Amino acid sequence: MSPARLEAFSDGVFAIAITLLVLDIHVPEARSGVSLAHQLGAQWPSYAAYLTSFLTIGIIWINHHAMIRRLRAIDHTIMTLNLLLLLTIGVLPFTTALVAAYVKQGHGQHLAAAIYSGSYLLMSIVFAATNRHILFAKVRLHRVELAERERRSIIARGVAGLAPYLLATGLAAVSAYAALAICGAVAVFYALPVASADSAAASGG
Amino acid sequence: MSPARLEAFSDGVFAIAITLLVLDIHVPEARSGVSLAHQLGAQWPSYAAYLTSFLTIGIIWINHHAMIRRLRAIDHTIMTLNLLLLLTIGVLPFTTALVAAYVKQGHGQHLAAAIYSGSYLLMSIVFAATNRHILFAKVRLHRVELAERERRSIIARGVAGLAPYLLATGLAAVSAYAALAICGAVAVFYALPVASADSAAASGG
Amino acid sequence: MSPARLEAFSDGVFAIAITLLVLDIHVPEARSGVSLAHQLGAQWPSYAAYLTSFLTIGIIWINHHAMIRRLRAIDHTIMTLNLLLLLTIGVLPFTTALVAAYVKQGHGQHLAAAIYSGSYLLMSIVFAATNRHILFAKVRLHRVELAERERRSIIARGVAGLAPYLLATGLAAVSAYAALAICGAVAVFYALPVASADSAAASGG
Amino acid sequence: MSPARLEAFSDGVFAIAITLLVLDIHVPEARSGVSLAHQLGAQWPSYAAYLTSFLTIGIIWINHHAMIRRLRAIDHTIMTLNLLLLLTIGVLPFTTALVAAYVKQGHGQHLAAAIYSGSYLLMSIVFAATNRHILFAKVRLHRVELAERERRSIIARGVAGLAPYLLATGLAAVSAYAALAICGAVAVFYALPVASADSAAASGG
Repeated sequence: MSPARLEAFSDGVFAIAITLLVLDIHVPEARSGVSLAHQLGAQWPSYAAYLTSFLTIGIIWINHHAMIRRLRAIDHTIMTLNLLLLLTIGVLPFTTALVAAYVKQGHGQHLAAAIYSGSYLLMSIVFAATNRHILFAKVRLHRVELAERERRSIIARGVAGLAPYLLATGLAAVSAYAALAICGAVAVFYALPVASADSAAASGG
Repeated sequence: MSPARLEAFSDGVFAIAITLLVLDIHVPEARSGVSLAHQLGAQWPSYAAYLTSFLTIGIIWINHHAMIRRLRAIDHTIMTLNLLLLLTIGVLPFTTALVAAYVKQGHGQHLAAAIYSGSYLLMSIVFAATNRHILFAKVRLHRVELAERERRSIIARGVAGLAPYLLATGLAAVSAYAALAICGAVAVFYALPVASADSAAASGG
Repeated sequence: MSPARLEAFSDGVFAIAITLLVLDIHVPEARSGVSLAHQLGAQWPSYAAYLTSFLTIGIIWINHHAMIRRLRAIDHTIMTLNLLLLLTIGVLPFTTALVAAYVKQGHGQHLAAAIYSGSYLLMSIVFAATNRHILFAKVRLHRVELAERERRSIIARGVAGLAPYLLATGLAAVSAYAALAICGAVAVFYALPVASADSAAASGG
Repeated sequence: MSPARLEAFSDGVFAIAITLLVLDIHVPEARSGVSLAHQLGAQWPSYAAYLTSFLTIGIIWINHHAMIRRLRAIDHTIMTLNLLLLLTIGVLPFTTALVAAYVKQGHGQHLAAAIYSGSYLLMSIVFAATNRHILFAKVRLHRVELAERERRSIIARGVAGLAPYLLATGLAAVSAYAALAICGAVAVFYALPVASADSAAASGG
């Protein structure tokens, strides 16, 4: 299989997942005695979770391109790892909706935040594993030879990128808001031009 | 990253957002004593908002193509700006559903119309900012050299295109219907062949 | 704009609309005293409308390709007409859900069937108009020169293809089932290899 | 029609169907007295059905590519068969939601599991029929000549791939869980690198 078709299919899943996120921002029901402004304000977790997931999927899409661009051919293991990666992207609309619904609730907020942060953590682990497999086990499929030092550096930075999600997932047990804030901060950080040059480097871009 | 892949991903988001709009046109529940014709007629705001958003996304897609076509390569700032632009497209199914649900309500109609017009305004601002960045800061990435006068003229027309949305967002405080009418008129105006030649020029097409 | 990008965007809308149709087939609520088989059987109109719309969108996609394939470039009028065509495709998930919900109802069934057949009629009219515009007004953009006789024959067959939808829309006032049956028969007819060679010819394939 | 455009449209449908699956995993309603963990745990059939369908669509996408890659041109019969195949993919979000909702119910679970397994069976049959048509009836459209023995072997393995779905569909009458387990096992088996080399071979990859 050519990398082009793998990219086209993956791009489709990224684009659909990122666009489906909006279905979890609900139009408040018209109720007497409650202003629309109040109702819209009350669902701020939906906006925060939406923004975070939108940026995160956008960044992982950019990094995915950098990862696949290195290959001149795709084998079955890469396809399977890529499918697992898409699976972790595909569930984000659910985990995003879950945290948006529960972060303000008296009960369930810690679990929801842990699942949300944990889904990002899982996504990053599968991404790093796929990148590692491509960089070390599939050297023969590379377009351009990369020095081992460079490859090690890419992986090291990718693993470093897991840290905040690990922290957020752990912190969720203490504060759902803190977990959400970390995930949001990571998204904004990597979207910024300076940081993302780093991120692109981290994923070998 | 090649402009082709940026376009492919963006096209995906445009195509999905434009098609998801239909999910906000609801099939009326069968009720005794109320004719289907009456129920369908009563939800005319859904049709108006749908048409306006469909045409607007279609036009911005055309202009997006004209904008990206100028580039022979993409850097990270362009990708980030493009991601922000897609974010303003991605929320349109929500703002469209919001105005459709509230424009006829006693309360909330002004706010809903302001959010709706405001989402178009935001989209146009991000579009103009992206275009400005590409035309002035990224001259080295252009496929073909453009005279500065021409580039200034493109931006000037792009900024002029913000005016009606600014007016609509302001007017929403007075009349939700007027705001909706302006947004609809803009969509129809730019979809017309003559006007859109202008629009294409405005965005440098 | 290159025909390739117009096709890519249009393909996206076709693919999304055809896949969104499934959202209108609902999982019956588990109720005591009513078997799932009975409930699933009772929603046969959903399956019939789904099948019809799926095949119809698939066929129009094939014909769309034949239409655009003739062009070596796209101008703004073609883009606008194409956007209108996509609009008539984009509403199909709604009209499909509408007829599925109302065809068995005591009231509203005639209107729902008329809207359903009418949406196909509108789609076919916009398709024929776009094809006519391309074949006669945009000869200078053709890849290969077509004899006028051939072009007239393509249009004639395209217009003939409107007839069953016109009949179905009219018949809906008398029998919703008959309208649905005609739309379904058209879809099956054009999907069959023999008929569709004709259809492909009709749309200039 | 070029195989490239058929692939692009099919890829779109695969990508959308695989991503829409997530809409059937519902965020539990916040209720007092029931923990979120309990509610999330109770909907394990949704996760199992999601995973199975996600992997299955991913695998059929890979095999689809192997099938179409053999062709240098597409005719109308292939397009119709491909459209039927996409139809069997398009209904999977419904059958997946159905089995997830009913597998734990006292009544309807057998039927739901039979429909679920049956939809995979149907998909596999249409896939095998399309492959058979391409391999034997459309030799003139092949990119590279394949020995008849090789073609027979591809079909034989494809037919063998139907067996577990046939078994699952039959077993559903006895145990819904067993049917679901078989479908899940098939998905995991073909996703594994070793097995899927076989699968790729089975579909001629």
